[in-house]
Amino acid sequence: MDVGVIGLGAMGSAMASKLVKAGHTVRVWNRSRGPVEKLAKEGAIGVEQPQETLQGEAAVTMLADDDAVAAVLLDGGVLEKARAGLVHVVTATISIDFAKRLEKIHSRLDLGYVAAPVLGRPDVAAAGGLNVLAAGDAALVRRVQPLLDAIGKQTWVVGDAPHQANLVKIAANFTLASAIETMAEAVALARRHNVDPGKLIEVFTGTLFAAPAYKVYGPAILNAKFEPAGFKLALGLKDVRLALTASEKSGAPLPFAGILRDNFVDAIAHGDGDKDWAAVSKVALRRAGLE
Amino acid sequence: MDVGVIGLGAMGSAMASKLVKAGHTVRVWNRSRGPVEKLAKEGAIGVEQPQETLQGEAAVTMLADDDAVAAVLLDGGVLEKARAGLVHVVTATISIDFAKRLEKIHSRLDLGYVAAPVLGRPDVAAAGGLNVLAAGDAALVRRVQPLLDAIGKQTWVVGDAPHQANLVKIAANFTLASAIETMAEAVALARRHNVDPGKLIEVFTGTLFAAPAYKVYGPAILNAKFEPAGFKLALGLKDVRLALTASEKSGAPLPFAGILRDNFVDAIAHGDGDKDWAAVSKVALRRAGLE
Amino acid sequence: MDVGVIGLGAMGSAMASKLVKAGHTVRVWNRSRGPVEKLAKEGAIGVEQPQETLQGEAAVTMLADDDAVAAVLLDGGVLEKARAGLVHVVTATISIDFAKRLEKIHSRLDLGYVAAPVLGRPDVAAAGGLNVLAAGDAALVRRVQPLLDAIGKQTWVVGDAPHQANLVKIAANFTLASAIETMAEAVALARRHNVDPGKLIEVFTGTLFAAPAYKVYGPAILNAKFEPAGFKLALGLKDVRLALTASEKSGAPLPFAGILRDNFVDAIAHGDGDKDWAAVSKVALRRAGLE
Amino acid sequence: MDVGVIGLGAMGSAMASKLVKAGHTVRVWNRSRGPVEKLAKEGAIGVEQPQETLQGEAAVTMLADDDAVAAVLLDGGVLEKARAGLVHVVTATISIDFAKRLEKIHSRLDLGYVAAPVLGRPDVAAAGGLNVLAAGDAALVRRVQPLLDAIGKQTWVVGDAPHQANLVKIAANFTLASAIETMAEAVALARRHNVDPGKLIEVFTGTLFAAPAYKVYGPAILNAKFEPAGFKLALGLKDVRLALTASEKSGAPLPFAGILRDNFVDAIAHGDGDKDWAAVSKVALRRAGLE
Repeated sequence: MDVGVIGLGAMGSAMASKLVKAGHTVRVWNRSRGPVEKLAKEGAIGVEQPQETLQGEAAVTMLADDDAVAAVLLDGGVLEKARAGLVHVVTATISIDFAKRLEKIHSRLDLGYVAAPVLGRPDVAAAGGLNVLAAGDAALVRRVQPLLDAIGKQTWVVGDAPHQANLVKIAANFTLASAIETMAEAVALARRHNVDPGKLIEVFTGTLFAAPAYKVYGPAILNAKFEPAGFKLALGLKDVRLALTASEKSGAPLPFAGILRDNFVDAIAHGDGDKDWAAVSKVALRRAGLE
Repeated sequence: MDVGVIGLGAMGSAMASKLVKAGHTVRVWNRSRGPVEKLAKEGAIGVEQPQETLQGEAAVTMLADDDAVAAVLLDGGVLEKARAGLVHVVTATISIDFAKRLEKIHSRLDLGYVAAPVLGRPDVAAAGGLNVLAAGDAALVRRVQPLLDAIGKQTWVVGDAPHQANLVKIAANFTLASAIETMAEAVALARRHNVDPGKLIEVFTGTLFAAPAYKVYGPAILNAKFEPAGFKLALGLKDVRLALTASEKSGAPLPFAGILRDNFVDAIAHGDGDKDWAAVSKVALRRAGLE
Repeated sequence: MDVGVIGLGAMGSAMASKLVKAGHTVRVWNRSRGPVEKLAKEGAIGVEQPQETLQGEAAVTMLADDDAVAAVLLDGGVLEKARAGLVHVVTATISIDFAKRLEKIHSRLDLGYVAAPVLGRPDVAAAGGLNVLAAGDAALVRRVQPLLDAIGKQTWVVGDAPHQANLVKIAANFTLASAIETMAEAVALARRHNVDPGKLIEVFTGTLFAAPAYKVYGPAILNAKFEPAGFKLALGLKDVRLALTASEKSGAPLPFAGILRDNFVDAIAHGDGDKDWAAVSKVALRRAGLE
Repeated sequence: MDVGVIGLGAMGSAMASKLVKAGHTVRVWNRSRGPVEKLAKEGAIGVEQPQETLQGEAAVTMLADDDAVAAVLLDGGVLEKARAGLVHVVTATISIDFAKRLEKIHSRLDLGYVAAPVLGRPDVAAAGGLNVLAAGDAALVRRVQPLLDAIGKQTWVVGDAPHQANLVKIAANFTLASAIETMAEAVALARRHNVDPGKLIEVFTGTLFAAPAYKVYGPAILNAKFEPAGFKLALGLKDVRLALTASEKSGAPLPFAGILRDNFVDAIAHGDGDKDWAAVSKVALRRAGLE
């Protein structure tokens, strides 16, 4: 397919690279030129203006959040210049309200809109291990399926309205943060009782909790290895806030998210905002007098 | 080995049965006679007095909690009549303070003491799938290893002081309850946004959370199937309280356990104390106006 | 003084009326004309355009929140047309970020800016009992002191940067909501123990908690009288959110606010968003199975 | 009246002294002799055995908690030796379950039982400013009213079952702790926004929160003056636990108490267990990076 890519951070670059390797014609744009040149060497076509990526069959945008999407695509009128009929695959983790706004804008502009946030960090993306959470009109999702196949190892279609994929992504990150917090509290409790926390995590990840969430973050908590950050703690707070906002707008209390919020705020107040979000575990240890 | 078993509820009966099948000489006692007779048919030796189970090489007791252990073994002086040198394997989920008290009592009576709480419900026990969390003097644990091998599929030695196994069990149940609560909140959030909660759980258990904790309880929450109870909600509150007490005594805040406590209390106030503890998920749904 | 007033809801009308009675020349504007005509009968001068209120020595605006202030004063360029040197008294409960933005805008436009949110409901305003929380340049506060004297019974100058008054107002409402929640939980606990909750509140308000917060809301909770709303529950959630946002931006965890947030969301999900915010007490009773 | 007093800590001594001054015949007993001798100089009659205080018309016991009451009065059979018909005034802050147990024991022994926990610290007791929360059979309460009048400035009869007074006391302490926590969070928020926390507390205690709870603890928090302890933080945790236990037994969630619990645990883990319980405010400041 003839596809554009906007947003070449670590995650966007990995995706674009996968698309090139899968044989698609890939036009790439990024605010800074470095990643564009790097991808050009792999076979992508670097373009000067973001709207140039929006003239093919589809475009994939990997931008950080509501504000970044609005700044790059809406405020300067870039999206208005897209070819009618283009299918826009938005992989950003954005708020439900903003996703609904994008649904209306795409409809008005006669553009297809598929939300496709992913589960996985940049290293997982590079290794081809991403899980793609897709939502949108079924025919549109089918049309971009080759792109999703190139980007990730599996696509989970979770609904026919794009914002539904964002909700699932927000819920997944909330669940992940809750697992991290739970392990942190359990580790603090264990250490206070002179139980080897390594044994605790070994038991957890060998039995009831033998899943990536625990296998990735358990050892990170044990070893207090939070740099380099796979996902920054400050962005973690952003995602917890997305869950809380979704909760407020819809009427679903989320008491665990309230606890998470305070702990992320606590962590940032102690200077850990740029570390990996598993560093929120330091709060439980510090509160137990273990730091 | 010549081993006694005290406490023949669903879990204790399954364990005794496994011990018989493994070829051990098993003397069994229970407050009510029904389970004794049932096991006698399988080859166990029913005895009239609990102390008769304590004259062999080892004894396994499967009693509900601190109070049950105290009532059966301590208050009437039963444990005092045990053969010196016996190794007592205590599988109950008991408090840290009570476990430490048992450590002293066994030492005074010249009895071996191994804590061996298990992960798994009675049906898992019957299928031979229990995970055994063992702690105690290494030589003693080795001595009873054949019994632990008969009872479960794997033994995790977590320390050389028995109460450490209880701490790991308490932490595991806290982690399990937290996973249930997290899923419940996520499901409420999804339903409020018209996202199919089945899709949500499918994604969770197919990706980051592909572990028994989520695979067992996710569908239970979705289907609101809480009877018959694998583990009663009122006992779940007891275990959350064990975590909170361990937290208070040792100095480790456990904010998630505080939320769990309130939700279990809420569930019991709404008549769900005898249902499976996954019924605590109804609280998140009810609070979101979804019941 | 020659003073304008914008925003003639229940609170703004009461304030304008007080200003007229104190002998000031008062120009009033409101989106709908009804309140303008009513105040004209009391001696105010009704004007057609909001900017007409901004040509005197000072102006008092009583608008609901960030969005209302932005819509009325900023988006259409109204504030840009204010007479240079005018002192703008903003009584709205707005976010800290928006208050800081207003500080910059007023500075750029050469306008004085005094924040003056108030403690008290419209009936208190009408009775002359408001407490005014003022912040801004000391000379400016002094200049508008006659207006503040007319509006309330006492002025508390809390700082020389306007947003500081907003912070104190946000903290006061957080403290008030916490007192309501505390009483609700205590009442639920009392009722579950067959203790007369009226006795409980009588003791509280007669001893340690003999203050307006408890004397006003204690009986409201007891009598479950939440209509007409003195302050709507949905606005209460807005103010809790202001506290949470101020907490996130600055790095101060607010665990009580997290609990409040969930309970307000719960209350709204159960249809009580338009009732008085003391109706959040129904959540504690409902969770205890008492409704 | 001919009255005995058991338990001559700071609070019990102040009460006994008041009883002597009111003209009653007061027999006093205490585990250590110092306070006995001191009160003897004021006119009390020191006795050697606790049961000697239980031979008159009434007895007032001021013991720390469930365990102290059980140790002094029950375990050694002391209460069994009381004169039939004696009215026992129990001022301890005890659990609801233990209070109910005492109700049964007194009934069996043909003793009157009035619960009379007090609001106020020892210095308030010495100044005659205690509020007495009384519950029990109305005739019995009337009979000991002269004693309650001597001890405090006002008696609040809250029910005819003694445990009801304990519940009100537990609820009052929960409410007090919640007020302290709320102020602590508000002060942290203010300081993070460069708002003078003294101004904040001045506004609070001058307006909506003009009550002893805020006037006593607001300045304590501001000045971080937590020694000497009027009421030890570790005892504060005990009282929060009483509230939580009452909540669990009866079915009333208490989310604020859950937050309090964690913060008291945090404070104790940081070495503040022997300071005044207002030192729990340090947790909010520490978490905000302000310590």
